[in-house]
Amino acid sequence: MARSSPDPNYERRVRDSFARQRFMGTIGARIVSVAPGEVVIELPWRDELAQQHGVLHAGAVASIADSACGYAALSLMPSGSGVMSVEFKVNLLAPGRGERFLASGRVRRAGRTLTICEGTVRAVTGSEEREVAIMTATMIRLEGRPDLAD
Amino acid sequence: MARSSPDPNYERRVRDSFARQRFMGTIGARIVSVAPGEVVIELPWRDELAQQHGVLHAGAVASIADSACGYAALSLMPSGSGVMSVEFKVNLLAPGRGERFLASGRVRRAGRTLTICEGTVRAVTGSEEREVAIMTATMIRLEGRPDLAD
Amino acid sequence: MARSSPDPNYERRVRDSFARQRFMGTIGARIVSVAPGEVVIELPWRDELAQQHGVLHAGAVASIADSACGYAALSLMPSGSGVMSVEFKVNLLAPGRGERFLASGRVRRAGRTLTICEGTVRAVTGSEEREVAIMTATMIRLEGRPDLAD
Amino acid sequence: MARSSPDPNYERRVRDSFARQRFMGTIGARIVSVAPGEVVIELPWRDELAQQHGVLHAGAVASIADSACGYAALSLMPSGSGVMSVEFKVNLLAPGRGERFLASGRVRRAGRTLTICEGTVRAVTGSEEREVAIMTATMIRLEGRPDLAD
Repeated sequence: MARSSPDPNYERRVRDSFARQRFMGTIGARIVSVAPGEVVIELPWRDELAQQHGVLHAGAVASIADSACGYAALSLMPSGSGVMSVEFKVNLLAPGRGERFLASGRVRRAGRTLTICEGTVRAVTGSEEREVAIMTATMIRLEGRPDLAD
Repeated sequence: MARSSPDPNYERRVRDSFARQRFMGTIGARIVSVAPGEVVIELPWRDELAQQHGVLHAGAVASIADSACGYAALSLMPSGSGVMSVEFKVNLLAPGRGERFLASGRVRRAGRTLTICEGTVRAVTGSEEREVAIMTATMIRLEGRPDLAD
Repeated sequence: MARSSPDPNYERRVRDSFARQRFMGTIGARIVSVAPGEVVIELPWRDELAQQHGVLHAGAVASIADSACGYAALSLMPSGSGVMSVEFKVNLLAPGRGERFLASGRVRRAGRTLTICEGTVRAVTGSEEREVAIMTATMIRLEGRPDLAD
Repeated sequence: MARSSPDPNYERRVRDSFARQRFMGTIGARIVSVAPGEVVIELPWRDELAQQHGVLHAGAVASIADSACGYAALSLMPSGSGVMSVEFKVNLLAPGRGERFLASGRVRRAGRTLTICEGTVRAVTGSEEREVAIMTATMIRLEGRPDLAD
């Protein structure tokens, strides 16, 4: 299911947008990879990210999955597009314990206006991985609104 | 629809748990109020919370709504309970622009094991308010697991 | 929060569309009321609607809530619009036991393209009511596509 | 990822429960296959299932996906268990046009109490298939409640 983007500069566009986004940096997340319709974000564990039981806060889980999904959607949009989240749902499958977390966002259906994405978050410790959460998300393409455009 | 908690110390319990939770402090959020089945959390705007278009990142929106819902659920649980998110869904209604954000979590149905909550996030600028997001969430009560207990 | 519709004939438009929709009739549902941004649908209990434990199938719960939300959205759209579901989520709060079920759909935010709605389903037995489910839904307006237009 | 069920009679148990469930029969759905953690349900097109634009009603889409997910969950539960839907979310990817529809439900994580499932609905016309919807669902195991037990 290899996809292609209408914009040959999709990777640069995604990485530039990510760099402008302060929140991912605030929590310590970075982009691992950008392919057409699929983006991976990594979040190393820090105590500052814990909820009351010492595991990754569900909000942090959702945050990296949302960004991975949003950038996966953006990677398939034409140049000049912006992207915003319309809605997302997260199911938490296991407590978020690990040295680092990998959020993958993949486009399931790319429409003209709306793009539907799936995300997963895995906890990684050494060579072990465990799925922590799954997301489905709807993203909307913004065009012709310079203030919000990418 | 005034509710009562089975635990007269529900407010202390919620505030103590919030204090142990690092992530809310990391993003700058604090508890505004705790009532039985309803908790309000405030997040002042900071540039560090922005997504690529300069508004509050949807992950930050979800994070404060999730915490407000989780603590609303905890406020109605018996002493010794812990709470974890099973799932939540967020619909973003408007871009998150404001001086501060108020997330309210309310219990819609409290069961023995599962509690269903509704959350809203409002953006506040001066005396103006605008609804930014709504959430529905399922929370699970943890008991008899000292490592995870409240 | 009384609303007004851009189309004075909103009620006729909603009722005509409902009459064209076969599925609601198939399960025995009918429209109870149409107001701008709020539609109520009633489903009398029939054994044919049961799941394996003898209560209303969650799919039937979702079906009437989805239709109520979709028509609530349509009631606020200009004449000539069609409406389709983008996504919805249902939380089941209690087993669906009752003589009849009332699904209310209300518009929470009406946008140019997307409308976000909330739905509830209540079970009614005599003078007693119990909330059975809540829904949040995203609806999309269709225009200029005669095959799908209302 | 072949799974095994704790109950060697899982298929009989699922098929018996499906036979007791009236709603699937009411809309014309039948079980196609039962494997441990995966169930497929087929719904042939009938005009009675249409929404106002002549395609499969989103509620019918959700109904078969919910049943497929619920029975996928039940197939991995011990004998004597019942299953109920806690919540589900559906994203509609394309209008439901086809000769028949296939809903697949797969267990993503089976817990002691809660099981998280993923569902897909595909429209089939001749040899062509198109994905119509995706679902994530939380199912709960019921035990020791003879009135609701399987």
